[in-house]
Order: sequence, then structure tokens, then C-alpha cells
Amino acid sequence: MNPGDLSTSRRIVQIRDGVANEADDRLATEEPLEIRIGKEPLAITMRTPGPPGSDADLAAGFCLTEGIIERGEEIESIEPCKIADYGNVVIVTLTDDAMTHRREQIACGKREMYMSSSCGLCGKQSIDRIEKAIKPIVGRFTVSPQTLSSLPDRMRAAQSTFEATGGLHAAALFTPTGELRVLREDVGRHNAVDKVIGAALLDGQVPIDPAILLVSGRSSFEIMQKAAMAGIAFVAAVSAPSSLAAEMAERFGITLVGFLRPGRMNVYHDRGRIAG
Amino acid sequence: MNPGDLSTSRRIVQIRDGVANEADDRLATEEPLEIRIGKEPLAITMRTPGPPGSDADLAAGFCLTEGIIERGEEIESIEPCKIADYGNVVIVTLTDDAMTHRREQIACGKREMYMSSSCGLCGKQSIDRIEKAIKPIVGRFTVSPQTLSSLPDRMRAAQSTFEATGGLHAAALFTPTGELRVLREDVGRHNAVDKVIGAALLDGQVPIDPAILLVSGRSSFEIMQKAAMAGIAFVAAVSAPSSLAAEMAERFGITLVGFLRPGRMNVYHDRGRIAG
Repeated sequence: MNPGDLSTSRRIVQIRDGVANEADDRLATEEPLEIRIGKEPLAITMRTPGPPGSDADLAAGFCLTEGIIERGEEIESIEPCKIADYGNVVIVTLTDDAMTHRREQIACGKREMYMSSSCGLCGKQSIDRIEKAIKPIVGRFTVSPQTLSSLPDRMRAAQSTFEATGGLHAAALFTPTGELRVLREDVGRHNAVDKVIGAALLDGQVPIDPAILLVSGRSSFEIMQKAAMAGIAFVAAVSAPSSLAAEMAERFGITLVGFLRPGRMNVYHDRGRIAG
Repeated sequence: MNPGDLSTSRRIVQIRDGVANEADDRLATEEPLEIRIGKEPLAITMRTPGPPGSDADLAAGFCLTEGIIERGEEIESIEPCKIADYGNVVIVTLTDDAMTHRREQIACGKREMYMSSSCGLCGKQSIDRIEKAIKPIVGRFTVSPQTLSSLPDRMRAAQSTFEATGGLHAAALFTPTGELRVLREDVGRHNAVDKVIGAALLDGQVPIDPAILLVSGRSSFEIMQKAAMAGIAFVAAVSAPSSLAAEMAERFGITLVGFLRPGRMNVYHDRGRIAG
């Protein structure tokens, strides 16, 4: 992948009417970006690195919309600088005047460590931290493609509020035979996932295994983090995964399915759990 | 609205083929929730409060997936408690053992103040802070329904990566006559908005007025916050707004349009800027 690429290529397995074929696919690139004010880290956000110049746009926009600056003239320079592995860092240098006037907001920003887009644990260091925190994923079960394909309709049928508002994400836990265990809706994708995991936890079911986590939208870094922390070995999404979601599936041994529709799906990692 | 409601009713204006009619609509409810460990605030998240018991699920799931606890037995109790206005607070009491073992993660969680779902400034206090920070929204312009309806297709035509991946959100700024000023894509909705605002800022165009901000997905608290901070008087979204997005549109004097499709749209606040 070249720096600044909006998408990343990946070898996947497409299943169409029960027939599996390998194919090349392109995934939306997701990588952490750390925004610093001078030497001080202000925020880490999971973002798509591109097109060229976008990190400067993102850092400038973030500084304005979070109240760190009030005008463009308060920015002296924005310099992208790359560090090892996952990490991308952009350094915003403010005028002395802006630093003096906004010292409180910067401290507040730092304290609150705003996390846009995907939140929670971010960056290379944090991915390592998840790896240390998670217990090995077990998931000794298989699911048939027919059962998998039926899950989105089963979830939709159980969603009480989506039809009325069109504005809620859903997450659900299913058994390997396709039985709905728990479903929750929320304006926030991550909240819907935390709600189903929390419901299972309070019911004494953690690690959540065997189980399939289905999300109504896309799968990203944070969805995979949450699945891994709960011991969930199988994540399926109605829409696309990000590049980092696929990388984490591989790293943690989680089966990741996307574009799950009647009769078709894409498998981004470990089709060993799809059989029959 | 009753506590625990997943949706909120609102009077809106539907425009169909240029004809405007008032109608009742239901919006996905979005409200801040503060999660505390004992007396210490751990996180604020913008969430949908429901169904009953969901805040406990969300808090328990969040504690597990962010590494605050490892097992359900470490939770002694989760008690929802309501404070004034926007604020909802849920208090998680951990066992002494869990507190001892996880003190570092809790401190870390506090320091980073994880923000899931919608991020950035949250809660009543933060909404007040935005109100103090924003300059009055001007936006002395009108847009025709025909021009508005054409914007999603214009944005899609300019999106380079969505077709390839299906996994990117887009945000764009248009002039009142429908000319595309800037478009950016990102895995994160909020990042796409920060990118277009940042691009305009670095081009010396803040406050961004007159302009229409179009987002490819839904509009939420944070999209409205970012628009307000950049002086944008008109926000349009291809999908649904949250209840809090509509409330903020009203509070800040921003025109908010949702479900923007060819020949139709819903207006959630201030149709005064839609004419001709």
C-alpha cells in the first residue's frame, strides 16, 4: 500500500450460492492518526489516510471544530511525520498567541483525549495492549452459509425501531444454528455492540462462545476490538469491513464476513468456521 | 419523551416534488450517558437510551471491551441515576478485588476519556460550551429544492473510492447554487467532515458561509457540533438525523435536511433557507 491510499487490496473468498471462490478485493483503508499540538499529543483518530494532504485537512478541521483554534491564521504549520508501523503522526504548530489563548482548551482536549470515528483503544501500542488483554479466541464451531445468509433478515425482523426512524444501528448475537440470543439498537454502532456484549456478560455468558456477532453496518477496528475482548470468534457485517478490521481478524483468529446478503457473502479471514 | 424511549417524535416538513407538507416523524433518540466507576467519571458516550436496562448493558459491555473488567463477577452493581436535563449517569460498582487489579486501566480510561459513537464534546455542559464557542450562524442564502435534490448524485459522482470498497463515508461542501467546493472520504463520518472543514479553513474560508454541508450517512450530535463550530448554516444528509441533531439545529439556527433523495427530502429545522 502506498502512503495516502484510500483503499487497500486484499485476497478474499467470495461465497455465491454456496460456491466459494478466491478473489481480489479493495478495502477502505483504516489507520490511526495521532494529532499533536507541538510536542503534546491531542488526539488519536482512526482515519483513512488520503488523498495526499488530507491529514493536514483533518488536523486543521479537528482543531477548529473542537475549539482548539478559532481562525486559520492561528496555525503556523502542519507537518505530517511518519513513525514506525501503524503509527502516523501529524504535528500542528500554533502561533504563540493562539497557544497562550487556547492553553486551557488544549489541556482539556488532551485530558479528554477526543477519539473520533473509531474510539477506544487506538494505535499500534493499543493494538498490542488488546493482544495482551484478550484471552485466546476458541470458537470451535462451524456455521453453514445458508444459516449465515439468513441472519440479516432475522435481525431486521427483530428490530423494533429501525423501521420507524431509519436511524438506528443494530448488533445481535446468534448461535451457530442461527438462533437469535440478544439484539440491541443504538445511534452508535459501537454502543449497539457494547449493549449486546454487556447483556451477555450480565447473563454470565462471557466469553461469548460459540456465537456470531452480526452488525447492521460496517466492521471497523473497534468492532473487532470489542469482539476480541468478549471472546467472540465470528463477526459478520451487512456492509464492508475496513482494512484494519480484516488485519485484526487475522491477528486475533476471528472469522470475518462482510456484505452478508441472501445467497452471498465475502469472507475476509478464516473460512474454516463456514461449512456445510 | 419517556425514559428509555428508542425514538422521539418531532414535527417536520416533508418536501415531495417541490410541495411542502407538515408531518409527524420519529427520530432515533440520541442522549449523552456518563459511565462512572464509583464516583469517578470513566466515559461519556452519545447513546440511545433503551430498551429499559440497556444502560446497564452498555456500561457492562463497555467495561469489558475496554479492559476495565475481565469477568461479570467483578461487577457488584450497576445503578442508573438521572441528573438534570440532558445528563444521564450510570454508576458501576466493582468488587474491591477488581478495583485493586484494574486501578491502572481505570486511571487510563479516565485519562483517555473514551468516547464511543459520537465523540468530541459531549453532554449538557459540553453543549453549553459549544454554544459559547460558536459565533452566531449567519447563512443569508436560499437553496432551491431542485438544487438540493441533485446534491447526493453530484457527491457520489465525485467519490473516487466508494465504488471500489463500499466502505467509505463522504462529506462535501456545496455552494447554494449546487457547485461542489470540496469533497473528502473517510472510514469515519466525523473525520470526513473534519477533512472538508479543514480544507476550507486552510484555504482561508472560515466561517464557511454561504455553504451546504452534505454527509453521505446520518446526522448526529457531533456532525452538528462541527458544522456549528465552522459557521455552516445548512446541513443535509442522505439518511436520518438523530433527535439531538434536530435539537441542535434548532438551538444553533442551522437548517437541517435528512433523507435527501431525488424529488424528496425531510426538513427538521428552518425551511426558510429552502426556496425557489
